[in-house]
Amino acid sequence: MSDFKTYQNMIETALENYLPKGEYTEQTLIDSMKYSLMCGGKRVRPLLTLLFCELCNKDAKIALHYACAVEMIHTYSLIHDDLPCMDDDDFRRGKPSNHKVYGEDIATLSGDAMQSLAFEIMLSDEAAEKVSAQNACKAAFTLAKYCGTLGMVGGQVIDIEHESKNAPIEILREMDEKKTGALIKAACEMGCIVAGASDEQIAAAREYGGCIGIAFQIMDDILDVTATTQALGKPVGSDKDNDKSTYVSLLGIEKCRELVDELTKEAIDALDVFDADTTALVDLAYSLAKREN
Amino acid sequence: MSDFKTYQNMIETALENYLPKGEYTEQTLIDSMKYSLMCGGKRVRPLLTLLFCELCNKDAKIALHYACAVEMIHTYSLIHDDLPCMDDDDFRRGKPSNHKVYGEDIATLSGDAMQSLAFEIMLSDEAAEKVSAQNACKAAFTLAKYCGTLGMVGGQVIDIEHESKNAPIEILREMDEKKTGALIKAACEMGCIVAGASDEQIAAAREYGGCIGIAFQIMDDILDVTATTQALGKPVGSDKDNDKSTYVSLLGIEKCRELVDELTKEAIDALDVFDADTTALVDLAYSLAKREN
Repeated sequence: MSDFKTYQNMIETALENYLPKGEYTEQTLIDSMKYSLMCGGKRVRPLLTLLFCELCNKDAKIALHYACAVEMIHTYSLIHDDLPCMDDDDFRRGKPSNHKVYGEDIATLSGDAMQSLAFEIMLSDEAAEKVSAQNACKAAFTLAKYCGTLGMVGGQVIDIEHESKNAPIEILREMDEKKTGALIKAACEMGCIVAGASDEQIAAAREYGGCIGIAFQIMDDILDVTATTQALGKPVGSDKDNDKSTYVSLLGIEKCRELVDELTKEAIDALDVFDADTTALVDLAYSLAKREN
Repeated sequence: MSDFKTYQNMIETALENYLPKGEYTEQTLIDSMKYSLMCGGKRVRPLLTLLFCELCNKDAKIALHYACAVEMIHTYSLIHDDLPCMDDDDFRRGKPSNHKVYGEDIATLSGDAMQSLAFEIMLSDEAAEKVSAQNACKAAFTLAKYCGTLGMVGGQVIDIEHESKNAPIEILREMDEKKTGALIKAACEMGCIVAGASDEQIAAAREYGGCIGIAFQIMDDILDVTATTQALGKPVGSDKDNDKSTYVSLLGIEKCRELVDELTKEAIDALDVFDADTTALVDLAYSLAKREN
């Protein structure tokens, strides 16, 4: 099994580095951003960016700004998702959610500023010089497209509009492809883009990301039923309480496990177009399919 | 007096064009974005971008994506600013605010998606081909920096933290330089950047933007005391009700009018480094200093 510790340490160091340092009048805002960003998440998305960059035979370090930008977009979406006017969650990863600590106003602004910071770091001279201005533009454009109206945010809106309506599987699939899948696709594609990969390789990364994105979401639904609250870091069974359609409620646990296996296989097959060693991304796909939290 | 109608029509058409068109599951989100974006605002910020681009001897059309991006950032900030957890304003420009029409959840997401859209349009192939990838990166970086933690959002946090504390003039100045001034500076600088201007010209645009930004905010405070509710499109005297420091409460109306005149003169003087015709930007600075809403 691949060991991702070195990459994860790189990501942690870089994330902390990209936050404004020093003394500012708006220190509360920076503290609030740091609170949610440096929370010990799994860092799956930035890891994907680094691994795809290496798979295209470039040093993972050149993709670091882009990897961290994806994690910042993910973090901002979690901060806003937890707000009382959204999911109204008091806890995130076993800790009080951002607005419980800093208030709703600062939490809203913290998410807003985190989104800007993601674009700021990708487009900085330091980042663009490593990957060329063309690739910097293309990568940041990809992230913007996948995180916006017809991507992540669109998926959240579909989620809100079908919350207690027993949505059919097609809607659930579209929602997850956007809400979860889009950002994971962006992470994979961006790793290839900054490495100057071919369109065929970028498409393969998108295919891999799309498959593990849906598998990831199905696993979330399975874990919501089978995991313990302690392992999950949030209340188990919260989906059922809401009368919300899930893959498990629509298909049953066994069929869901089969789907996760199929999607994981599809993801791994997509890697065939790359001529470098795919072990790390194969291992990562398997580990996500077998995760317990 | 310069007539800005042609530019304003270009901006209106482009803004509407950049919104997703067609039928989508997330139509409510798109409707909500359109509701706030196509609201008949003054479009001062995008106008500045176009005028500075022309001042650098390039066709204003090449700056259109960047001009509209600034307006989108401005619009998202207004949507979030009006939320109950922020300023809790039920009206904006005489119409119900976004969350009163679409709900707080959609309004929050609508602002989020609008920010992504701003970056998406600036970094699209269509935009970047007109101005070069280098300039596209630099312009989008400038906007990201000015709208984030140490710019617009930072200014909003300073505002929140000093709301009922009778803030001294230094804090008021820092707040306004960030909350209002930063985005206006970005608008001016971006016009020069996409036109491939020199560092000296970009610095002059920043100086002009900084001066009219503060003048703009002081005028807001003056109008809050002197205008009629009808002309202003929001309740007059709302600052006083909150016990909030304003330029008028700290310096008095006469001193404020003097300051606006001084800042307007400084802004106009900054234009000396450009060798093209500055009439339009001179007229715009004067018209902002004399506005009645």
